Amino acid sequence: METKAQVLYDFTAEPGNNELSVREGETITITNQSIGGGWVEAKNSRGEVGLVPEDYIEVNQAQPFTSGGNAAPIDLSFFDSHMPAQASTAQVDVAQPETPVTPVSPGFSSTSPDETSNGNDPWAVFDNNASGGFSNNWAAQPEGTETGKNSSNAWHSGGHGHPQAYQGPGAEDDEWDEEWDDVKSSGGYAESEAGEGGAITRGGAHGSSMKIALNKFPGFSKSGPELYLLSKQPAKGNKLPVYSGDVGPVWAYPDYQLDCVVADPKKGSKMYGLKSYIEYQVTPTTTNKPVNHRYKHFDWLYERLLDKFGSAIPIPCLPDKQVTGRFEEEFIKMRMERLQGWMTRMCRHPVISSSEVFQLFLSYKDEKDWKTGKRKAEKDETVGVMIFSTIEPEGLPDMEIIEVEQKCEQFNRFTRAMDDGVKDLLTIGNEHWKRCTGPLPKEYQRIGKAFQNLSSVFTSSGYEGEATLTDALTSAGKTYEEIAQMVAEQPKKDLHFLMETNNEYKGLLGCFPDTIGVHKAAIEKVKEADKLVAAGKITPSEKVGMSKRASTMSYALQAEMNHFHSNRIYDYNRVMQQYLEQQVKFYEMIAEKLRLAHSQFTTM
Amino acid sequence: METKAQVLYDFTAEPGNNELSVREGETITITNQSIGGGWVEAKNSRGEVGLVPEDYIEVNQAQPFTSGGNAAPIDLSFFDSHMPAQASTAQVDVAQPETPVTPVSPGFSSTSPDETSNGNDPWAVFDNNASGGFSNNWAAQPEGTETGKNSSNAWHSGGHGHPQAYQGPGAEDDEWDEEWDDVKSSGGYAESEAGEGGAITRGGAHGSSMKIALNKFPGFSKSGPELYLLSKQPAKGNKLPVYSGDVGPVWAYPDYQLDCVVADPKKGSKMYGLKSYIEYQVTPTTTNKPVNHRYKHFDWLYERLLDKFGSAIPIPCLPDKQVTGRFEEEFIKMRMERLQGWMTRMCRHPVISSSEVFQLFLSYKDEKDWKTGKRKAEKDETVGVMIFSTIEPEGLPDMEIIEVEQKCEQFNRFTRAMDDGVKDLLTIGNEHWKRCTGPLPKEYQRIGKAFQNLSSVFTSSGYEGEATLTDALTSAGKTYEEIAQMVAEQPKKDLHFLMETNNEYKGLLGCFPDTIGVHKAAIEKVKEADKLVAAGKITPSEKVGMSKRASTMSYALQAEMNHFHSNRIYDYNRVMQQYLEQQVKFYEMIAEKLRLAHSQFTTM
Repeated sequence: METKAQVLYDFTAEPGNNELSVREGETITITNQSIGGGWVEAKNSRGEVGLVPEDYIEVNQAQPFTSGGNAAPIDLSFFDSHMPAQASTAQVDVAQPETPVTPVSPGFSSTSPDETSNGNDPWAVFDNNASGGFSNNWAAQPEGTETGKNSSNAWHSGGHGHPQAYQGPGAEDDEWDEEWDDVKSSGGYAESEAGEGGAITRGGAHGSSMKIALNKFPGFSKSGPELYLLSKQPAKGNKLPVYSGDVGPVWAYPDYQLDCVVADPKKGSKMYGLKSYIEYQVTPTTTNKPVNHRYKHFDWLYERLLDKFGSAIPIPCLPDKQVTGRFEEEFIKMRMERLQGWMTRMCRHPVISSSEVFQLFLSYKDEKDWKTGKRKAEKDETVGVMIFSTIEPEGLPDMEIIEVEQKCEQFNRFTRAMDDGVKDLLTIGNEHWKRCTGPLPKEYQRIGKAFQNLSSVFTSSGYEGEATLTDALTSAGKTYEEIAQMVAEQPKKDLHFLMETNNEYKGLLGCFPDTIGVHKAAIEKVKEADKLVAAGKITPSEKVGMSKRASTMSYALQAEMNHFHSNRIYDYNRVMQQYLEQQVKFYEMIAEKLRLAHSQFTTM
Repeated sequence: METKAQVLYDFTAEPGNNELSVREGETITITNQSIGGGWVEAKNSRGEVGLVPEDYIEVNQAQPFTSGGNAAPIDLSFFDSHMPAQASTAQVDVAQPETPVTPVSPGFSSTSPDETSNGNDPWAVFDNNASGGFSNNWAAQPEGTETGKNSSNAWHSGGHGHPQAYQGPGAEDDEWDEEWDDVKSSGGYAESEAGEGGAITRGGAHGSSMKIALNKFPGFSKSGPELYLLSKQPAKGNKLPVYSGDVGPVWAYPDYQLDCVVADPKKGSKMYGLKSYIEYQVTPTTTNKPVNHRYKHFDWLYERLLDKFGSAIPIPCLPDKQVTGRFEEEFIKMRMERLQGWMTRMCRHPVISSSEVFQLFLSYKDEKDWKTGKRKAEKDETVGVMIFSTIEPEGLPDMEIIEVEQKCEQFNRFTRAMDDGVKDLLTIGNEHWKRCTGPLPKEYQRIGKAFQNLSSVFTSSGYEGEATLTDALTSAGKTYEEIAQMVAEQPKKDLHFLMETNNEYKGLLGCFPDTIGVHKAAIEKVKEADKLVAAGKITPSEKVGMSKRASTMSYALQAEMNHFHSNRIYDYNRVMQQYLEQQVKFYEMIAEKLRLAHSQFTTM
């Protein structure tokens, strides 16, 4: 079968590079997917064949496509075999804790028979009151990844991202690949990179939502929310109180807000220099003692946090691994900036920042100490839905299930709407970035050149006394050339931060379908409690306990949402101010330059 | 034979209009040229057939193409039959004054046998020292017309011109067609509209260079410069003195510079209302008495001026006849503005403004008076090269032919270089216009919408106390929508005038190949004088006379160039000042709007 693809952006072939010029909207046929380096070979409707950047095209849906080079496709076939297409309920199946997805138990089913698969929308799972939301997320996840594509790498300032700056075939950085290899071998990524089946994630196409949650979320795979709802174990670990604040339920905030500085990236090596890596210096404001961490340490922390808190708190992904940048320095700078953003967000979170594992990360002393802490953290049993067992609403009345459900629906609607809004802004910002760094400055440059050219023609006239005009015209021309440069550099000064903030929020919001899914599933279970009692599956007192626990879960979610809102207001206020301030400076500077150019012409 | 055409601009078909979307650079096949209304039917490479605007395509060279509707194709076949392809010399053939092109006389030939046709470049005629430049211009003229296409209608603000605003099929304005009919029937255009042969001028595709000089230039068709160089007649008509000024030879400038105001267009009708037309009010600053003129009167004036002064003074074309605008009012406004520009330029010229025919135009009293003056002007015999017989260099020494030639070469080089520079600026300005009125404001609008959308999502959060943020965000969004509108409207405030001025200069510069051609031909004749004397064709005293007259011609040309330069310096100084002033205001206003938007966010 032929693999067709749609061209997303115009791409102009460089002569002699065996490339193929394509235009936005064109349909091409993939003739070779295993070129690598972010390229595929394709044929256009005129039969011309050549290389096209992978990121410039979108393979038509439902057609298999594997990236030749950088992509880490997710093998969905593995999950498909475990999960019916219409999976809609979850089962209490504590006996099979290692099964990634628990099969449907008829006894727990409450869904209507016409309820169909939710297709590709990560949010669609909640559209028709599907009960087993979180298991439907398996199917939904790829789309979350897919939509992340347009706005993750495509817009930022580095050598990767901007189409004009796209690196040619073979421009991969082997050194960095090595670090990925390193990461890969230590992490749990093997299966996600193996298959060709339903691969949709493409090279450089990762969003920052929970893209690998499907096989990195043991908390989910071990159990449904029933594990907590019906748990008889006493809570282990530190208590997480939820208080009644001005805006509703809130987490306990520390008096002193933790922060840290990620800085000073240094190249290290191991295995007698065969493997090299970058270490970042992380300095917490509490101790002011710097600790060094490699990306893979951050990644380990991310996995622990996801395991432990993911059911209650959205844990945004780390900045993409798979960034292929031509310029090492820019890549490191960009990654550091994003690790800083991630760490700041984690520090700001009262639950995460005070957690043992996070403190361990910030207080790394030596390899031995680290390994001990690591082992301990990996053995933590209060993970997945069990985190809710540590939550203690203080002075807050138990909520009715109907209210719990309403709150959950409200958060779902909001995060979903915000997700749309943020993605929309990212798409537009991305296009604006391209215009500001591509055609627009080129045009100003050409205007500048045209003025200067006219000036030199005028100079050749042999007519006396026009030096004032020609000097002024040259100066105006140079001004437009300067403006061209300003225009091209401006996005780094303002749009960059707006995009980064929205990208962070896209990552955060991408976690909500999973988090909210856990709550949805719990609510469904509680609503089924009467039937379960009638069927003798649970006792009446267990039913009361389930309802109380759903209430506790809701307080946790409310506290988390209030935390999210207060951060959101702070972040958007700050970034919009910064954006507008820089925009004002930009336009003022242009006006000032033009005023100067204007003054050089004779007043008549 | 299939007629292929290149697509010059992207065109997006409107649904249901039987239109065909085409992309810049695409090759299409014309399937029906007689659609009319500025449209042709064409087929693309995928076999799809539909209507495409004529102005968006360029028919591949050497293929016949006739516009179906508005075009007034020039029948070159008529001239071809009179003129050998390699026509390179002109003949003194006073006995055949009515022959449009005089055949080559071997006795006057001085060209090398390998000198080939100059093809399509109006300037190419001077590249290889062709002697009979002016007759080669016959071949060159169509290109002059052709190159005018891109920048005449394509950029200005009205309903015509901007590709986005292109009218659909059948949107012709019959009323205006009627006026053209009227003009056609009374003017000398019949032959230029008859044929299908070498038609290159297309609907709406006229530049403002001397596009119809070939059959509107009896001064050229009656004779070569020999008519003047060897003339024994005494000069008729008013003398045109050339003085020695600070910058070299100059025309005699009047103490008071004439100007006039073109205003108050009014619809009139004749033939019991069957034919309608627009009358413009022309008010000279001298008399302050308004006179009314229809476009056809302007056109008559243009023809008279071209006849009389065209050999010595570039007479720019009137604004295009063939503008098809959807909006009558905008069309009339645009034409008026351009007629004003043309009249101002004519008024500023000391020779033209003081001429009898120009004064007749400005002092129109009644139909009878006008007709008498018209007849007189049409009988004027001091036309074509004979205008030089009225020129009297005052106190200026006779110039050697070598110096005459050097001056002529210098002017040729300059006007040619400026023509390139001006066309370059027009092309860039055209693109900038399209960007500023098309994609750029759309992008700002989308940014504005995205901010507002995010604001309304935030409002739906249910979280208390974020009204300041959401209000500020809405306000920022609206600001970007306002900026979008400012961006879209700005070109009318600044780029428009820059474009108009350059368009005027393109028109003027397009006349120079003809004007300089006359001088080149005269120089060649003078350089052949020795041979002619030796062959007994002219007497030695005739040779001396020829040289003196070439010197007079050169003074006329120098005076004209100095006039051109002084006007150019004035015009460009003024238009650049205006442009930059408006640009400064534009950027300042944007900065101010953004400053206001910025101030609405909370300072933290």
